[in-house]
Amino acid sequence: MLARNDHGRGNQEGHPHVTLTQHAPAPRLPVETSTDQAVLIVHGRDRTGIVAAVSAVLGKHDANIVSLDQHSDNPHGGAFFQRTVFGRPGLKAVLPQIERDLQDRLADGFELEYTLRDLSVPKRVAIFASKADHCLLDLLWRHRRGELPINVAMVISNHADTADEVRSFGIPFFHVPSSGPDKSAAEAQHLKLLAGNVDFIVLARYMQILSGDFIERVGVPIINIHHSFLPAFIGAAPYAKAKERGVKLVGATAHYVTEDLDEGPIIEQDVVRVSHAHTVAELQRRGADVERAVLSRAVHWHAEDRVIRHGNHTIVFP
Amino acid sequence: MLARNDHGRGNQEGHPHVTLTQHAPAPRLPVETSTDQAVLIVHGRDRTGIVAAVSAVLGKHDANIVSLDQHSDNPHGGAFFQRTVFGRPGLKAVLPQIERDLQDRLADGFELEYTLRDLSVPKRVAIFASKADHCLLDLLWRHRRGELPINVAMVISNHADTADEVRSFGIPFFHVPSSGPDKSAAEAQHLKLLAGNVDFIVLARYMQILSGDFIERVGVPIINIHHSFLPAFIGAAPYAKAKERGVKLVGATAHYVTEDLDEGPIIEQDVVRVSHAHTVAELQRRGADVERAVLSRAVHWHAEDRVIRHGNHTIVFP
Amino acid sequence: MLARNDHGRGNQEGHPHVTLTQHAPAPRLPVETSTDQAVLIVHGRDRTGIVAAVSAVLGKHDANIVSLDQHSDNPHGGAFFQRTVFGRPGLKAVLPQIERDLQDRLADGFELEYTLRDLSVPKRVAIFASKADHCLLDLLWRHRRGELPINVAMVISNHADTADEVRSFGIPFFHVPSSGPDKSAAEAQHLKLLAGNVDFIVLARYMQILSGDFIERVGVPIINIHHSFLPAFIGAAPYAKAKERGVKLVGATAHYVTEDLDEGPIIEQDVVRVSHAHTVAELQRRGADVERAVLSRAVHWHAEDRVIRHGNHTIVFP
Amino acid sequence: MLARNDHGRGNQEGHPHVTLTQHAPAPRLPVETSTDQAVLIVHGRDRTGIVAAVSAVLGKHDANIVSLDQHSDNPHGGAFFQRTVFGRPGLKAVLPQIERDLQDRLADGFELEYTLRDLSVPKRVAIFASKADHCLLDLLWRHRRGELPINVAMVISNHADTADEVRSFGIPFFHVPSSGPDKSAAEAQHLKLLAGNVDFIVLARYMQILSGDFIERVGVPIINIHHSFLPAFIGAAPYAKAKERGVKLVGATAHYVTEDLDEGPIIEQDVVRVSHAHTVAELQRRGADVERAVLSRAVHWHAEDRVIRHGNHTIVFP
Repeated sequence: MLARNDHGRGNQEGHPHVTLTQHAPAPRLPVETSTDQAVLIVHGRDRTGIVAAVSAVLGKHDANIVSLDQHSDNPHGGAFFQRTVFGRPGLKAVLPQIERDLQDRLADGFELEYTLRDLSVPKRVAIFASKADHCLLDLLWRHRRGELPINVAMVISNHADTADEVRSFGIPFFHVPSSGPDKSAAEAQHLKLLAGNVDFIVLARYMQILSGDFIERVGVPIINIHHSFLPAFIGAAPYAKAKERGVKLVGATAHYVTEDLDEGPIIEQDVVRVSHAHTVAELQRRGADVERAVLSRAVHWHAEDRVIRHGNHTIVFP
Repeated sequence: MLARNDHGRGNQEGHPHVTLTQHAPAPRLPVETSTDQAVLIVHGRDRTGIVAAVSAVLGKHDANIVSLDQHSDNPHGGAFFQRTVFGRPGLKAVLPQIERDLQDRLADGFELEYTLRDLSVPKRVAIFASKADHCLLDLLWRHRRGELPINVAMVISNHADTADEVRSFGIPFFHVPSSGPDKSAAEAQHLKLLAGNVDFIVLARYMQILSGDFIERVGVPIINIHHSFLPAFIGAAPYAKAKERGVKLVGATAHYVTEDLDEGPIIEQDVVRVSHAHTVAELQRRGADVERAVLSRAVHWHAEDRVIRHGNHTIVFP
Repeated sequence: MLARNDHGRGNQEGHPHVTLTQHAPAPRLPVETSTDQAVLIVHGRDRTGIVAAVSAVLGKHDANIVSLDQHSDNPHGGAFFQRTVFGRPGLKAVLPQIERDLQDRLADGFELEYTLRDLSVPKRVAIFASKADHCLLDLLWRHRRGELPINVAMVISNHADTADEVRSFGIPFFHVPSSGPDKSAAEAQHLKLLAGNVDFIVLARYMQILSGDFIERVGVPIINIHHSFLPAFIGAAPYAKAKERGVKLVGATAHYVTEDLDEGPIIEQDVVRVSHAHTVAELQRRGADVERAVLSRAVHWHAEDRVIRHGNHTIVFP
Repeated sequence: MLARNDHGRGNQEGHPHVTLTQHAPAPRLPVETSTDQAVLIVHGRDRTGIVAAVSAVLGKHDANIVSLDQHSDNPHGGAFFQRTVFGRPGLKAVLPQIERDLQDRLADGFELEYTLRDLSVPKRVAIFASKADHCLLDLLWRHRRGELPINVAMVISNHADTADEVRSFGIPFFHVPSSGPDKSAAEAQHLKLLAGNVDFIVLARYMQILSGDFIERVGVPIINIHHSFLPAFIGAAPYAKAKERGVKLVGATAHYVTEDLDEGPIIEQDVVRVSHAHTVAELQRRGADVERAVLSRAVHWHAEDRVIRHGNHTIVFP
């Protein structure tokens, strides 16, 4: 087994060489298993003593701190943010007790919120898509390759076009048409499908506006991806406007959805270089490449609790 | 129809809005059609008068120059390289005559080679792959979206794993096992499959060394992709070595295959930032992202005759 | 001498090694001399035959085409742009005749503009600055290193702070205070200093608005640099706003100045990655790094006639 | 005063506007003052309880943790690294006691090293240079602008060329010729100049090899910058070789100097895109731009104790 393992790795990493068998199962890059690990996010006001309190609780339970990131937005009385990954053999058994102890220690004297999550249980996600499939497929591929620690519970689309493709990944596909200005019927269906089944939602180029009512009732974080430009072009046909102004960079922004359309906290951004020689269609294609890269990073980080929302921005420990 | 078209574009580019029908066929980004256009590559020694000669021939046939790039590697008697795209209505009918006239004009007094190609006929490609599917799928998916002006004639793999996936794109898949040090049987089969059917070959993470004999006999350009590092790590397990040295960038290089393994003319390169926090597996994943991006650009440029080989390097008009 | 030259180059490029003398003059990277070369920009409507006409004229005078870039913004009757660098021994003597011949050939039947310039004569520039010196010093230092083919005629500032520094580069410094809302006195002084002395102006973080009247009367191109964000933040304190929204990229845009403040044709853009851990001051510093890089590229390209303005955008042949 | 301050900031960040006075001192971007803050680096084997121990000591002294980064290279018994910045009013007075308490708490049961440093005292640096001044001047400028929290104690060069320039920054310049293969005399002089005066050394394109004996005797970290390529080109004239191979990226690597020339732990790397159109001289210029950017980041991070050496790589908390 070891030998085959080594061999597989040699194939991935090194120069080509002879392979000894054609019948081994397709190697997938190993998913980063996080058995026996949990992540704790602490987010609040007062910070003197919090690190010590958390450490003491973890130490008492023989849990090792695997990684610890902390950020203060102002050394003098600002907000602070801490992400701690810790582990120990048999963590599942002792996690409830760790939670109770944290509750006891952090309840008094600290103004803060915290969340504790078992990393061996991937977050469940619903992906919303329309006709453009580049972001959707990129997520499904990465998931199949073991790159994304998520559980894709379902894909919901207002178009049926991608049904076969999605189902070929072994993932349920639901077609929920959404024509006309009144989306309440469609959104009611969405809520029925989602209720209790997902931990977050990804809008993978979903071309419908979500109502404020839906956002509130669905009750889980929603990640969106949209193009972004230097400088920004608002309204219809942004790529045509960008071409007219001769932009040299095309970009994309992943953010959490709030009621302010496209104005929620930014999770990730990136750009790609373009030139006068590119047509509007080529700008769109390059933009699509950036969109899928940026969205996949945002989903990855959210799935591992690496993103903390605060006001209208985020703290990201990538 | 026009209205629907506009509507679809609005969806792609702009903010989400209500769509009126669920039954329209899945919109694909328009393939850059190059009907009635041809590309002329001129590459040689002497250059005074060449531009004029080419222009005169094209002018005589009422052909418009759509784009023209030229590069001299040394103003004083070096090599020069010219890529001209030109067009006119009904080009197909007159192209043979244009070719004859170019032949007449460029035959005398110029030491040069030239190639003329009808851009409405996409180049035919065979993609070679092994088990890792990220580069293979990226090419197939871009092709399906209309982003790559190529005709994927076949996929050849030494593993059967990706057969279903490849065929779901409507592309023939051939499984040619290649075990043991003697590859002559496998290569003989490759040559039989390829003969007369392809204009170039892409090694999309194909984990077998091609023999010099094969490279010579196949007679078409071969594009390969491999990782590259700053500084370079040679031999097995390069990502582990890169991790040990603490590199901050991981990269990929697409190049033409020559008998000098991984030393042929570079077409394209790119890198992605990494940190000490990334595991070897994560370095590999990020490397894989760069590989597919770099390979798709190299294939795109080669397909449009934007890459000219010269000595051990390339001139790229991207 | 050759030996010493080689030796010096070894120092620049290779691994450290013993040097034989301490008394050689400080080596500067060689300025790309363009003796006996000229650049021709042709920009217009009709293009069939133009390349041939230009080539014929150059061929008649035994001038070699060193580089040739052409761009059509629409193959079917759009605008086209051509940049040709050509050379021959003793070019200066024959350039007026070449110009007359081009005039004859291009005057009839073509709707176009063209400019011809002797590349051995660098463009003269005035740099306007205020207190922030990062862009100003970067330009002066690159100029001294021989990297920028410009002649810095003068530096004009509304503050005296950088006077010594500028003069240490051997460049005239003029202090033109510009307080109060009425800038006409200052602008009158500017016009007097500039008249006949400069070919273009660079605003290197010059913190004064230029009046439309000044822009018109000065009659030479003006290049400006300003920050740019994803998404854009308008008005005062943009970095503070960018921090509040949690942007992950900070950028800069170099553009030609028009009466629409900060809305003129873009020459170059770039970005740098930032995170939640950066203070507003750190965002500014990183922004300043991008500003100087972007501005120096824009100035370089403008100085070599690599930028063609068209409508509200540019064609850049970098 | 406040008003002027606001006004100055408006100038830096926002659109140009009228300034009211010419006589204010040149505004410098504010140096990040770290009065009353210290940085603690802990680096070792066993980690259970360390975070708690450190927190307890800091809590006892009413010190706030401003930022905390931790990295484990292997959750199961690997090395771990922690950088903690903490502060309290009047820190200087209590720092020795904090150190003693840390000593007591961390001495037993933990295999680790730690260093504690008062952040209000910038590290003292000697910059070594030769003739090329781009890295040297970049550091001096950034330092003058308040961007680098360092104290430049001296510049040492084997050439006298940059003496005036360096001294115009108010910094001592020492010319130590170093001709011939025997560097022992020069190195003896270096050691005399450096002894007790500096906390680290930066080789800003210093074109002399340091002997192993010097590295050992000088006893402070040494940071070097050198070009790096994809793939690497070893030996003389690397840019010419890179051009011959047609690289599309040019890069630079900053690393700690060890006896293995150019093989020490990497601190930072970056690249810039190039093309076939660039001459060898242009490749060098672009390389120089990357070199100064990469070196300044490495110096910045080292100055703030953001880089921890471990084996032949680094942990960087940027």
